[in-house]
Amino acid sequence: MKIIIIGTGNIGSAAIQAVQSAPDMELIGVFHHNEMEAIARLPHVDVALLCLPTREAPIFAKQLNQMGINTVDSFDIHTQIADVRRQLMPIAQTNQAVSIISAGWDPGSDSMVRALLEVLTPQGQSYTNFGPGRSMGHTVAAKAIQGVKNALSITLPLGQGKHGRHVYIELEDGYDFEDVRRRLLADDYFAHDETEVERVDDVEQYQTTAHGVLLERSGVAAGKDDQQLKFEMRIDNPSLTAQFMVGCARAAYRLQQEGRYGCYTTIELAPVWMLPGEVEDNVKQLV
Amino acid sequence: MKIIIIGTGNIGSAAIQAVQSAPDMELIGVFHHNEMEAIARLPHVDVALLCLPTREAPIFAKQLNQMGINTVDSFDIHTQIADVRRQLMPIAQTNQAVSIISAGWDPGSDSMVRALLEVLTPQGQSYTNFGPGRSMGHTVAAKAIQGVKNALSITLPLGQGKHGRHVYIELEDGYDFEDVRRRLLADDYFAHDETEVERVDDVEQYQTTAHGVLLERSGVAAGKDDQQLKFEMRIDNPSLTAQFMVGCARAAYRLQQEGRYGCYTTIELAPVWMLPGEVEDNVKQLV
Repeated sequence: MKIIIIGTGNIGSAAIQAVQSAPDMELIGVFHHNEMEAIARLPHVDVALLCLPTREAPIFAKQLNQMGINTVDSFDIHTQIADVRRQLMPIAQTNQAVSIISAGWDPGSDSMVRALLEVLTPQGQSYTNFGPGRSMGHTVAAKAIQGVKNALSITLPLGQGKHGRHVYIELEDGYDFEDVRRRLLADDYFAHDETEVERVDDVEQYQTTAHGVLLERSGVAAGKDDQQLKFEMRIDNPSLTAQFMVGCARAAYRLQQEGRYGCYTTIELAPVWMLPGEVEDNVKQLV
Repeated sequence: MKIIIIGTGNIGSAAIQAVQSAPDMELIGVFHHNEMEAIARLPHVDVALLCLPTREAPIFAKQLNQMGINTVDSFDIHTQIADVRRQLMPIAQTNQAVSIISAGWDPGSDSMVRALLEVLTPQGQSYTNFGPGRSMGHTVAAKAIQGVKNALSITLPLGQGKHGRHVYIELEDGYDFEDVRRRLLADDYFAHDETEVERVDDVEQYQTTAHGVLLERSGVAAGKDDQQLKFEMRIDNPSLTAQFMVGCARAAYRLQQEGRYGCYTTIELAPVWMLPGEVEDNVKQLV
């Protein structure tokens, strides 16, 4: 499989590692998001890994599918995933390509687990608990508050799907901490959660790419209540995202080979399509 | 979907509950394993759930596939699964049917999780820890020891994929406990594990269908070591088995509708195929 990576941030850098250590992949090139012309000149590409800001991903997926190149992204705005899928579906189908969207860890691998937990217990309560780890969205929101020079927002799991925030901020000169803190707490991103704001001299001292999740479900199987299921990870955020995208690149390639063109989310994929090697060998080792 | 259940033991009884509470299924009949003639006379069946002793399952899958009926079983002899798949594949394909094998919780849903953990961390160590819960195989082996009137073997998780056994036995009159215990410990089923043998007056006092599993993996994602992943369940064994078979019945039906005939293990199935309702609605709720 001939792979290209578009985007050179945390996830793009991790994707280079993941592709280079894949036994069945060849890394053809790594591109910035403004190098589409160079990509168009490449002789043959099987899959492009879109390691781009989330809102750019569907735009690039569309363009690349139109060139017949399969794509994998980690588009992560949960409420828009079904819409993106519906928009990309005919484009992928018309161009005999496959687009796999929202293929990070949440949405992504967690989505597959959530679906499986619901298969196992059709009635019940599910909770997704994130963290501790950095929230990109909340970090960006904190940085946008007037008087904030630099910020970092850590998501804290409080249990049963509730989350708190720990926000580190560096102040701009001439601003009052209490005043900045009050405005941050009034921001819609923070107004609904338990939020602790801490003033620090250097936010970078607190940076981390570590993250985690606990998916919990208690439900009913075949009429029997109180079946308890759990999935838990402590991970490096960009590394796990990139590695899972590499798995989904295999799925995209196989689906295209079988003529099953279109746009897919991860719950529509079988785990074995994401593994290298023959299906029968994986059946022997993993089933 | 028109469903029949073959077998009336613990799993068959739970399957009745699971099918009756499925919004998209109709239970056409429940049959003993010697009623194949009655099944052959039924006007139309989509999927047969084979709730039979494990060695009988492939025999019935073959016969039913030959009648064009899709099957789901929970065949659980790990070392023979790839062979059974290879044998059933051409039979299902020739008869335009789908056979999903080894669709309990292990092999079955655990297999899907094991495959997913390997996608997320291609290098690493995985451990499957079972229990505490009843082991059918070890219980049968204990009952076969001369002088044992009744027995129950509980699997104890010792960590890192190692297991101990707690065996309850009721003695036949005239046998010496120490002598029976020595012979049991020498049996190949018990000789390799830490095994505690306890003599009790009534084994039935200790019966349980509760079981559990902890799948653990520590591995490398995109070059980053020490990524920690875990899947854990505390469940009722026959209920979870039956409920997952019902999910796989949906997958079998969909695969047949799409003309993708053949024999599949669970790692070859996408989670959303196992859920009722439209794919797009499940994408909205679960991704």
